[in-house]
Amino acid sequence: MEIYRGHIVYSKNSKELEEISNGYIVVNNGVIQDVFKELPTQFSEEKIIDFGKGVIIPAFSDLHVHAPQYPNRGIAMDALLYDWLNQYTFPLESKYQDEEFAKQVYSAFIDNLIKHGTMHAVVFSTIHNQASDILIKGLEDKGILSYVGKVNMDKDSPDYLIEETTQSIKDTENFIKKHLNNKYAKPILTPRFAPTCSFELLKELGELADKYHIGCQTHIVESLWEKEEAKKCFKDCRCDMQIYEEAGLLKNKPFIAAHFIFPSEEDIALLNKCEGYAVQCPDATTNVIAGIMQTGKLLDTGINLGIGSDISAGSYLGIYRQVASSVRLSKIKSFYEPDNRIISFNEAFYMATKKSGALFGKVGSLEKGYSFDALVIDDLEDDFITLKPTEIVERFCYSGEVSNIKHKFLRGKEI
Amino acid sequence: MEIYRGHIVYSKNSKELEEISNGYIVVNNGVIQDVFKELPTQFSEEKIIDFGKGVIIPAFSDLHVHAPQYPNRGIAMDALLYDWLNQYTFPLESKYQDEEFAKQVYSAFIDNLIKHGTMHAVVFSTIHNQASDILIKGLEDKGILSYVGKVNMDKDSPDYLIEETTQSIKDTENFIKKHLNNKYAKPILTPRFAPTCSFELLKELGELADKYHIGCQTHIVESLWEKEEAKKCFKDCRCDMQIYEEAGLLKNKPFIAAHFIFPSEEDIALLNKCEGYAVQCPDATTNVIAGIMQTGKLLDTGINLGIGSDISAGSYLGIYRQVASSVRLSKIKSFYEPDNRIISFNEAFYMATKKSGALFGKVGSLEKGYSFDALVIDDLEDDFITLKPTEIVERFCYSGEVSNIKHKFLRGKEI
Repeated sequence: MEIYRGHIVYSKNSKELEEISNGYIVVNNGVIQDVFKELPTQFSEEKIIDFGKGVIIPAFSDLHVHAPQYPNRGIAMDALLYDWLNQYTFPLESKYQDEEFAKQVYSAFIDNLIKHGTMHAVVFSTIHNQASDILIKGLEDKGILSYVGKVNMDKDSPDYLIEETTQSIKDTENFIKKHLNNKYAKPILTPRFAPTCSFELLKELGELADKYHIGCQTHIVESLWEKEEAKKCFKDCRCDMQIYEEAGLLKNKPFIAAHFIFPSEEDIALLNKCEGYAVQCPDATTNVIAGIMQTGKLLDTGINLGIGSDISAGSYLGIYRQVASSVRLSKIKSFYEPDNRIISFNEAFYMATKKSGALFGKVGSLEKGYSFDALVIDDLEDDFITLKPTEIVERFCYSGEVSNIKHKFLRGKEI
Repeated sequence: MEIYRGHIVYSKNSKELEEISNGYIVVNNGVIQDVFKELPTQFSEEKIIDFGKGVIIPAFSDLHVHAPQYPNRGIAMDALLYDWLNQYTFPLESKYQDEEFAKQVYSAFIDNLIKHGTMHAVVFSTIHNQASDILIKGLEDKGILSYVGKVNMDKDSPDYLIEETTQSIKDTENFIKKHLNNKYAKPILTPRFAPTCSFELLKELGELADKYHIGCQTHIVESLWEKEEAKKCFKDCRCDMQIYEEAGLLKNKPFIAAHFIFPSEEDIALLNKCEGYAVQCPDATTNVIAGIMQTGKLLDTGINLGIGSDISAGSYLGIYRQVASSVRLSKIKSFYEPDNRIISFNEAFYMATKKSGALFGKVGSLEKGYSFDALVIDDLEDDFITLKPTEIVERFCYSGEVSNIKHKFLRGKEI
């Protein structure tokens, strides 16, 4: 049993933060046994690990990140989606046929994910099986709760990065079988997006979903270009989500719809129906996509909403910066489209922690019964003014740096 | 004489970066004597300071920052301008009647400004003379090229933060006289913005401008609320800029128009005529203002355009993050208002270095004859991929942290 003392901040619900100044967290076997404002006498003989003025917050979840694109983060940010894919991203992804390259990148990616306070993630790999094995094994070995997908793309892709449909399905099944019984890093179906997938491929992925009871991640209505392309490719479908429904890909959980910027009413209804998650990737959508998710409206429909770094359309691994960007974007959206409301900091923080965490189990909060996956942040306050713990957390998201993360815990173990 | 070796990146012009891999900068008495791809034999006996794979870039200029708001950076970011001013910003500014508080904050502010790579700045203080003296003296002592203003506000302000007109002018003249002969930190007139200034106050500031040949900084058309308020207060004026012209405040240089988000054609013409600078503060305008500068259009008119952190409407002191945000916002603007073009990374970097630097003299570039005000950035590259020096600079702006600034030079001296 461990007892930690410090300020404690976590999401009570989607609108409110719980804030305990100088509180105590009792952890037993990696699970939070209780949280106290005053430590009960029964614990008075126990050793207390004191974080002083540090603030204990839940570790973050990243619901959309392309591990193979890690080497391109923060470059080529002038481009827009189509050019960015063809000139920068696809050429880089083709390199993962080289296992040695994959080993180097994925090792650095996972280390940096953790360094930036992310302990749970939904991750794209590339089409390459060996490289995808390296990625999922790396995450499993580090104990990162995650869904990891070998990418499928069998049409309208560059020659150097395209699969033959039957082989794509065979490789996917092999990948699933190999990792189905992983403890932490689970396989997930990962058709890249509608424009690069034949319906035959999607249908067969749907069969794998049923056979192995696994979910699916993809990009949904991420740009007007993508939305139009999908319509051209799947003339019988009224919307992006319907393509996946027709293919049988909405039946198993989880379904993860990255971006979800231009959904129709039917897209929203279908995502709600399958209890899927839409993932906002604020910096990515402003870097290469151009378009802003209707976050406030979607929150009000009760849809599950998470946040993603979307490296390398997004440029920074730390989800805390995306919390700030999410609030900012809601202000711009509301300015241009006044029927969209501004979201609060508390809502964005909830999306990035408790709500996203629910995808993986009891993580993303510091309540009793949750896994102690937590960060201690510090050195954000000045001597000349006193901030409330919640204000320190807000400052961390808006102005903080990775160096403000002083301690990181995963299932109670400091890493 | 000092010789520095490393990758070198600076703006050749508004559209192009100069990139010299493994180049040399020869500095004499703090001024760049020459920049070389290969070091001429005449220098072969000299000691060379080698930055290895580090990239030498010009130090940044921050053209709009409120030093007294530094304690509030990154908090209260849910609010919009009117509430943010009245609930958070004005109460904090009232504290600067306490000189001890001013000393503590301004010392931390200046240290952090430098730490984040900013060596030239245009700075707001508060209405308080003693605190303003402390701020400008602090900047002068550190040798930061700057314009610093004691704020004027004589109407529609809270009781605890309002001046009587005659006293405001008297205090301003005292402030100017005291610091007019400073070497680095120069006084500048600083009427807060049209809604909190009487025309009488502005007219008398115009007379001080003429008497002492000093410029003026203020907020111009920063929000639709502010624009409407200004129109109500100054019924004879067709636009914000005309108020300042009528008051005689456009005759002396520099004139610095922070935000400039909703200018009329006449605002633009007047700013162009007085050769003033408009300052984009990307994060600030999305945090509390809501509105995006028409950066591309303004650049194409040839208007002088700089970048500001606008602490604490902006939430981060490092101008490099604002370079990235400036490109991002141009993409959103272009999405919603397609007659606005996207600006390039090179243009945003130019705005934050060479263009802004020109306001202060020969700073903001690494060309011959410029002051060696420079940063060395490093630890941005991975082992498994090689980036061009310009890509390293782009990554620094999008994904970097203050810890990536390894060396800082001001007029040739490392600080």
